[in-house]
Amino acid sequence: MLVLGIDPGMATTGFGVLEVEGQDYKAIDFGCIRTSPRLEVTQRLVQVYQGLQNLIDTYSPVSVAVEELFFNKNVKTAMAVGQARGVILVAAALKGIDVVEYTPLQVKQGVVGYGRASKRQVQEMVKILLELEVIPKPDDAADALAVAICHAHALPLMAHMQRLGR
Amino acid sequence: MLVLGIDPGMATTGFGVLEVEGQDYKAIDFGCIRTSPRLEVTQRLVQVYQGLQNLIDTYSPVSVAVEELFFNKNVKTAMAVGQARGVILVAAALKGIDVVEYTPLQVKQGVVGYGRASKRQVQEMVKILLELEVIPKPDDAADALAVAICHAHALPLMAHMQRLGR
Repeated sequence: MLVLGIDPGMATTGFGVLEVEGQDYKAIDFGCIRTSPRLEVTQRLVQVYQGLQNLIDTYSPVSVAVEELFFNKNVKTAMAVGQARGVILVAAALKGIDVVEYTPLQVKQGVVGYGRASKRQVQEMVKILLELEVIPKPDDAADALAVAICHAHALPLMAHMQRLGR
Repeated sequence: MLVLGIDPGMATTGFGVLEVEGQDYKAIDFGCIRTSPRLEVTQRLVQVYQGLQNLIDTYSPVSVAVEELFFNKNVKTAMAVGQARGVILVAAALKGIDVVEYTPLQVKQGVVGYGRASKRQVQEMVKILLELEVIPKPDDAADALAVAICHAHALPLMAHMQRLGR
């Protein structure tokens, strides 16, 4: 099954499509939805919305894993990212896709096994786990693959919980 | 013609529907789209999205006027409001409705004629201009009517500019 990881942003929304078979993960596609700063905010958000829906139509993922925002950025950045993030969540939900959110801490723990791992360590681990020759570029795509891996790690536990009826 | 004013928020999105005929404004409807904090963020955003689309379906406004965010709130608030705001902008744009944004300064200048007016002064002016018996409640609804009035004031100038081909 396929999992779609998303690192939301107004200018650049990273995405990573992961094929998950048990413990085996394979990167099927990754990259970015980019919007031009010359467009109005509304038009940029529509591009993010349609970009995500196109990815869902193309890959039919079982779930979309979205990174929660860092809170250490400034207010203006937080609002811009928030707008893109809101659009991502709704675009996925309206397609009937399960949306799961992970904090940066959860992503680090899930991918590296260590919550205080550096960004570079996470990216190295993404490269190793997916048997890629180089770290995926740009950073947003690598981050999106990381959140997809984090979700893939959580899937067996979630399935187990579901069987237990929790 | 009808103008829809929106004051976006995650828990409470204020709306105000204004009938505009030349210099005459009339409040047709106002209130809030509310979402429960017990729901997941994604479900709350879907409610905001569908609430706005319902308003558009009901009233077929010529444009949606949205208040830009204040930047003096904290980062977490900015992100939450940003998410709701992004959803509002996309919901309107996907319905083919013209979306116009106004800063709080523009709203104050447009409604009271004075950029440093207090929130209370803006609300009093909304009451007077729309010949209401009391200030609309809650505040989010009054704020939404204010941004709709601000847009109504700007309409003749915008029409004039359009005639001039600008």
